[in-house]
Amino acid sequence: MLHTLSIESTGQGLVDITAPVQSVVSSSGTREGLCTVFVQHTSASLLIQENADPSARQDLESWLNRLVPGNDELFTHTAEGPDDMPAHIKSALTATSLGVPVIASRLALGIWQGLYRCEHRRRPHSRRVLVHVA
Amino acid sequence: MLHTLSIESTGQGLVDITAPVQSVVSSSGTREGLCTVFVQHTSASLLIQENADPSARQDLESWLNRLVPGNDELFTHTAEGPDDMPAHIKSALTATSLGVPVIASRLALGIWQGLYRCEHRRRPHSRRVLVHVA
Amino acid sequence: MLHTLSIESTGQGLVDITAPVQSVVSSSGTREGLCTVFVQHTSASLLIQENADPSARQDLESWLNRLVPGNDELFTHTAEGPDDMPAHIKSALTATSLGVPVIASRLALGIWQGLYRCEHRRRPHSRRVLVHVA
Repeated sequence: MLHTLSIESTGQGLVDITAPVQSVVSSSGTREGLCTVFVQHTSASLLIQENADPSARQDLESWLNRLVPGNDELFTHTAEGPDDMPAHIKSALTATSLGVPVIASRLALGIWQGLYRCEHRRRPHSRRVLVHVA
Repeated sequence: MLHTLSIESTGQGLVDITAPVQSVVSSSGTREGLCTVFVQHTSASLLIQENADPSARQDLESWLNRLVPGNDELFTHTAEGPDDMPAHIKSALTATSLGVPVIASRLALGIWQGLYRCEHRRRPHSRRVLVHVA
Repeated sequence: MLHTLSIESTGQGLVDITAPVQSVVSSSGTREGLCTVFVQHTSASLLIQENADPSARQDLESWLNRLVPGNDELFTHTAEGPDDMPAHIKSALTATSLGVPVIASRLALGIWQGLYRCEHRRRPHSRRVLVHVA
């Protein structure tokens, strides 16, 4: 079963998509199996991260921003703005696809795990996230 | 088929889990298919790395420790200790889930590939690793 | 369905493997499902990146080369040459396996996404890439 989600952002940051992905799993009728999440973009990505304290996600984002700053003199791919090439690199360092087992019709995430769609561009974007359940 | 492994560590480092994951594949009866490994934690992760010379894994770990040191003044998420936020970041940079094809009832790893569960915290931890075979 | 591709390189860089992987998907007869790509090496890896402007991929490679230079005094695993340990690290930071949904017998990549096999060694190498479709 395959479903496409459109996930909005208000700017750079992590958006929790655990609930909408779980909804797809629930409506698939699959009790035990595998859910694969895939983002159809190269300047947005996926991450499983701590869902309890928002400061952990904020620190991760700050750390990535420092590791991959815009206006790096190394970059030649600059036509789409100073946050475009860092977005591609951050996407490469995190995940474009993630497989999560399904147990008892639920995403088998750990207690402190949330599933996030990361927006690496500064402007708001709607991103297509595919959810495959089998 | 889904099975949960509990993998211990003695501290920070890579633990070879190729054999216990292969055991799950063997007992699944699947001859050709896909094995998905998933770690239910955000300060431990998965990696496929060279299994021959331990110095390669040691250098990888040293390199990650230098890239993501504790006590970074950027971090605000510090309540769980100086190795907690680096552990979340290292987990984000490596893998939470990995899909490995199964051929002739074996994980189709390359000759020099081993499957590792990475502990990024300093204290010993037992970590839950899910293995799905289909 | 499982198929092994041998993908050559002329040296360090990204090789577009979208077409050969799509060929495996087409010949599998699978209309809707999941394609998992897996590289059987620890100094080569997989990436989904922008397929439009080659400068994005070139910048990514330059950035990784600066982040993980050879001849790092930290490295003890040096017997196989100064580009070997950086290759292992770059492989760890990118992907060894990728799951891509299949819709209407096509890899469901975004418009600007290409599937790449990254060679992190300087010399040309032939690398084994497994493609599983189900």
